[in-house]
Amino acid sequence: MYDRIKGFRDFYAAEMGARRQVIETVERVAGGYGFREIGTPALESARLYADKSGEAILEELYAFEDRGGREVALTPELTPTVARMVVARQQELSKPIKWYSTRPFWRYEQVQQGRFREFYQTNVDIFGTDDPAADAEILAVAADALTELGLTGADFDFRVSHRDILGGLLGSFDTDVDTAAAIRAVDKREKVAPEEYAALMADAGLTDAQIDTFDDLLATPAEDLETLIEFAGTDRVETAVGNLQDVLAAAADFGVREYCTVSLTTARGLDYYTGVVFECFDSTGQVSRSVFGGGRYDDLIEGFGGQPTPAVGFAPGYATLSLLCQRAGVWPEEALSTDYYVLQVGQTRAVAARIARELRERGHVVESDVSGRSFGAQLDYADSINAETVVIVGEQDLENDEVTLKEMESGEQVTAPVDEFPGDYQRPTVEKFTG
Amino acid sequence: MYDRIKGFRDFYAAEMGARRQVIETVERVAGGYGFREIGTPALESARLYADKSGEAILEELYAFEDRGGREVALTPELTPTVARMVVARQQELSKPIKWYSTRPFWRYEQVQQGRFREFYQTNVDIFGTDDPAADAEILAVAADALTELGLTGADFDFRVSHRDILGGLLGSFDTDVDTAAAIRAVDKREKVAPEEYAALMADAGLTDAQIDTFDDLLATPAEDLETLIEFAGTDRVETAVGNLQDVLAAAADFGVREYCTVSLTTARGLDYYTGVVFECFDSTGQVSRSVFGGGRYDDLIEGFGGQPTPAVGFAPGYATLSLLCQRAGVWPEEALSTDYYVLQVGQTRAVAARIARELRERGHVVESDVSGRSFGAQLDYADSINAETVVIVGEQDLENDEVTLKEMESGEQVTAPVDEFPGDYQRPTVEKFTG
Repeated sequence: MYDRIKGFRDFYAAEMGARRQVIETVERVAGGYGFREIGTPALESARLYADKSGEAILEELYAFEDRGGREVALTPELTPTVARMVVARQQELSKPIKWYSTRPFWRYEQVQQGRFREFYQTNVDIFGTDDPAADAEILAVAADALTELGLTGADFDFRVSHRDILGGLLGSFDTDVDTAAAIRAVDKREKVAPEEYAALMADAGLTDAQIDTFDDLLATPAEDLETLIEFAGTDRVETAVGNLQDVLAAAADFGVREYCTVSLTTARGLDYYTGVVFECFDSTGQVSRSVFGGGRYDDLIEGFGGQPTPAVGFAPGYATLSLLCQRAGVWPEEALSTDYYVLQVGQTRAVAARIARELRERGHVVESDVSGRSFGAQLDYADSINAETVVIVGEQDLENDEVTLKEMESGEQVTAPVDEFPGDYQRPTVEKFTG
Repeated sequence: MYDRIKGFRDFYAAEMGARRQVIETVERVAGGYGFREIGTPALESARLYADKSGEAILEELYAFEDRGGREVALTPELTPTVARMVVARQQELSKPIKWYSTRPFWRYEQVQQGRFREFYQTNVDIFGTDDPAADAEILAVAADALTELGLTGADFDFRVSHRDILGGLLGSFDTDVDTAAAIRAVDKREKVAPEEYAALMADAGLTDAQIDTFDDLLATPAEDLETLIEFAGTDRVETAVGNLQDVLAAAADFGVREYCTVSLTTARGLDYYTGVVFECFDSTGQVSRSVFGGGRYDDLIEGFGGQPTPAVGFAPGYATLSLLCQRAGVWPEEALSTDYYVLQVGQTRAVAARIARELRERGHVVESDVSGRSFGAQLDYADSINAETVVIVGEQDLENDEVTLKEMESGEQVTAPVDEFPGDYQRPTVEKFTG
């Protein structure tokens, strides 16, 4: 007997059905906003990641040399791939480019609750516009996807921040601060001890007094953002604060401002973000880690050799999103569903097949015997697949030109003329043939 | 600038939209028959393939050692994985188990037309029944999927054969024949020169006279299968012929017999098939190679350490299926489609957003400006995404409490009261607001 590989999962039918419903909901919402599905490869040149993030990143990837001597890696995220694709057809693609795709990614890291080595995400991105409405549209797609899943404003909270406010504030100190290192420290803050946070900030070049000042600034609520402009006194912070306010105003027009809380202590771990960033959290705190996040990354396409192309996106991962949905009681039931089981008794396969075919043509899920089983065994199987209605096609019934319909939940049954079944009914039930 | 890896493809939105339509059609048909989607890992232990097919298979795979010292391989096909999954839950799964899934697979092989190193298939399998109706249901799902795509009986042909008829006939010769080698030779027959075929058969242990006799037997049409029983005079061939006839009879009941031609020269390359096998070919021959195939593999689950579990399935690949659909003129148009573009002129974002949201709630694909563009630039963009209807939300119109609807193809336009738009209409058009 063979085992699956650690950190990789098999999804059996009942669980997969629930996952598919959730994925389709997210995709339907993105599609409604005019995001278009793309398809992307599982392997990329390892250079794509090493050049962007340093050689050390390769230790966290499934990277190897292929039989043609290429250094390749299983894709750990989509952003470098879509950046490559934008660069490859930059001239011919009409802007804004709005793409989504759902697929697995792979990282060789510690396996824990909600974190696997193979994990599924839907990536949703807009390329080619730095308008605040684009950032807000990303927030709107994210919020609509969650509310379509049955979540409410009491279930989740988008903590919205701005990389250039953080960078601008750090740059306004009169010491030499390593902005990227300080932002990474802010991102780690809730996961590490206070002393460690202080040490990381000190390493980034801040004095103890500056750390305290910065902490106070990060606590600034949405209505007092102007005070940050006064503190810094720079065009950079003024522009960044104005941009965050414009994004929130657009989010209000789009009907999703209520899900957003300004939270400058939210920083996002990846270096490539440049503007608004956000993370979705469970409002109750029961799911303790960020459910997913996103933000603006205006410099990445140029870094990949393309024309300067602003970009913004988000990527819900289904491992953590399922934890939130389960906590909130909106994860779809993990059970098979079947509209009809067409049960054969005796040599009735041709009639049963005709009925099954006509029910399928009406869009139903219809199973019939492919195992040569007895009446009882077929009824047990119909029950095991949660068939709503069983259509019994028996030799004796057929002598009277009849079939029997049986509702599995109530046990009610009725006979129907075989020549008129399913007839004109889109969804023939016991009730429709009764009386 | 980075390149994608040889043999791997990027699917941009227009092409992906067509692929998605085709994939969803195949999945919808399988789902209608009660096949359930499963999710499977991209990596498996390399042992899974080497134990089954020999160490040499690893040369054709993306196989490597992971950071934990595991010998792993990117999955080249689904069958070993689903066999592993069946074995892992053999007791609890109710039979028959009917599964489908669509995903990429990977093989390190020569890239040519319709063959890539990353390729997509939908696998459809039934486990736990050796009834001929199961084989016929697989043929029915395959045929229904193709006709749902718009293909007809004039476009494709299922060449149906039976491994145990071939094996039984070879076993009835009075020399010591390597059955597996001879069947592989039959599978290669149309791809190699006649001398090479003869040499392969001779290597498998057949005399020249036996090769001629066997060739004559393979030409036996459906109505003369009884002659094979007479020739062999064995229970094995009698049973196998009876099984093939039973499968064809069930296919007739299921309404798909017309797509099947008995063709004993069809053998399928993989060793694990045991009963009925089939390959789908382009009836016109313009797509020269097999489009896809399938068959019965009753011994594989036991070979993976499970209880004896008969199985039958098929797996359409989208590289070759797209060639057939394109040849027949039924490949979906590769173009973006958009129901509405909501065009903003001036400070009208809040109203435009309300209209866009209500149109999306009615299930439409709706884009609106996220780039701060002019009227003309927005209209050009709406045209580039093939918007059917543009809803113009202008400051002046709004002063009169109106919006303007414009059909992009005809150029017709009409004004509508903003408070009644979209109102009670599911699909508001110029026509509905005219007159």
